Amino acid sequence: MGKVYLIGAGPGDPQLMTLKAARALGVADVVLVDALVNWGCLAHARSDARIVEVGKRAGAGTSQAFIEKLCIQHAKAGQTVARLKGGDPFVFGRGGEELRALLDAGIEVEVIPGITAGIGVPAALGIPLTHRDLAHGVSFVTGHGADINWQALVRSRTTLVIYMGLRNLKNIVSGLAAAGMDPRTPACVIENGTLGTQRQVMTRLGALSSAGFRGPALIVVGAVVGLARMPVQEKAKAA
Amino acid sequence: MGKVYLIGAGPGDPQLMTLKAARALGVADVVLVDALVNWGCLAHARSDARIVEVGKRAGAGTSQAFIEKLCIQHAKAGQTVARLKGGDPFVFGRGGEELRALLDAGIEVEVIPGITAGIGVPAALGIPLTHRDLAHGVSFVTGHGADINWQALVRSRTTLVIYMGLRNLKNIVSGLAAAGMDPRTPACVIENGTLGTQRQVMTRLGALSSAGFRGPALIVVGAVVGLARMPVQEKAKAA
Repeated sequence: MGKVYLIGAGPGDPQLMTLKAARALGVADVVLVDALVNWGCLAHARSDARIVEVGKRAGAGTSQAFIEKLCIQHAKAGQTVARLKGGDPFVFGRGGEELRALLDAGIEVEVIPGITAGIGVPAALGIPLTHRDLAHGVSFVTGHGADINWQALVRSRTTLVIYMGLRNLKNIVSGLAAAGMDPRTPACVIENGTLGTQRQVMTRLGALSSAGFRGPALIVVGAVVGLARMPVQEKAKAA
Repeated sequence: MGKVYLIGAGPGDPQLMTLKAARALGVADVVLVDALVNWGCLAHARSDARIVEVGKRAGAGTSQAFIEKLCIQHAKAGQTVARLKGGDPFVFGRGGEELRALLDAGIEVEVIPGITAGIGVPAALGIPLTHRDLAHGVSFVTGHGADINWQALVRSRTTLVIYMGLRNLKNIVSGLAAAGMDPRTPACVIENGTLGTQRQVMTRLGALSSAGFRGPALIVVGAVVGLARMPVQEKAKAA
């Protein structure tokens, strides 16, 4: 029986992968890699490793069930499998489902966490997610769910980090405003964070717009955004 | 003029440090290290680097102002400084204050994020912080603040990860129960997570207790705790 490493590749920049992840990649016979993972991460894989792209972008691509089946199949054939996912496997990564399927199949699994985009990407802009007097904590949510309690999130007084929110940005902004958040609250959209192609717009909640963005983007809303190295633009331009 | 790297060392296990952090440590003349950082991380420092322990544990130790002064002093003397903090510098790490002080002093700073305990430690137990149908997201808060809106956090239906909550655990449990959280919600306390000395109690909100714990501990509350590799104990024993 082989073994599966369920690995978080980090937010983008391959240098933000952990030492443990790089080491696990180096012993894998097969690497199953998501579309959001930067290919620079694969520099740590063995030159004879089989690389399989099982990417999903906005729902399309290889099905979750098929990915799980592939991992199980390779492990049962005695191979060491590296399952490489963007960010952290357990923060909006469906890693919990993969872990469960593998354990149910009797496969040995080791989870190697990664830096989630919600932490690594704001860091690249110098945005502290928590800060005395400004944020009591930080909440990570997805922007595509219709059943998010924006009022509760606003009242929690945590910095809000919203994954996959670009397509639903109008509803997010109106939801937060309706929940009583000041439209002048600093906010930003960051695309391709930590990579050379990173672009961002630093603005305020009321002026948030998806115009000009296409890639995977992160939205951060909260007073701490005002502490970023790049100042908030009162007249935000499209990226 | 020198430069300061503001580095997150990760949750404990030195192998969970990033490649970028290891590389920055390797070029530093001076390393200013927090008490919560595992000394194994320093294996990446140059053999002739000056290691300064500026640790704070539960408020005691070197003052924040003095640490900032030390960083500035060394950088102004032309040295490359690695400021190594536990977890991630911007998640309850006061990294925002250090970054601000350094930039105000005209020092070049590069922030290198780390895996925060709130992500890396649950991963070691196989707890997915988000999971379809079970958690809409995840919130990170500290347990020592008196002004936390537990009701809002409960209503947000996010997994709750509570840092530094051991001393205030009774108030946290009663706060969450008063806010309407089911006392049978799965919950756990994890001490020294990701290290060889890791200990945990898997239980339910109503049975959470700090008995037997002394070290830095993380508290996780939410249905996802029920997915951990170690099952929830109906009769929890002290660690």
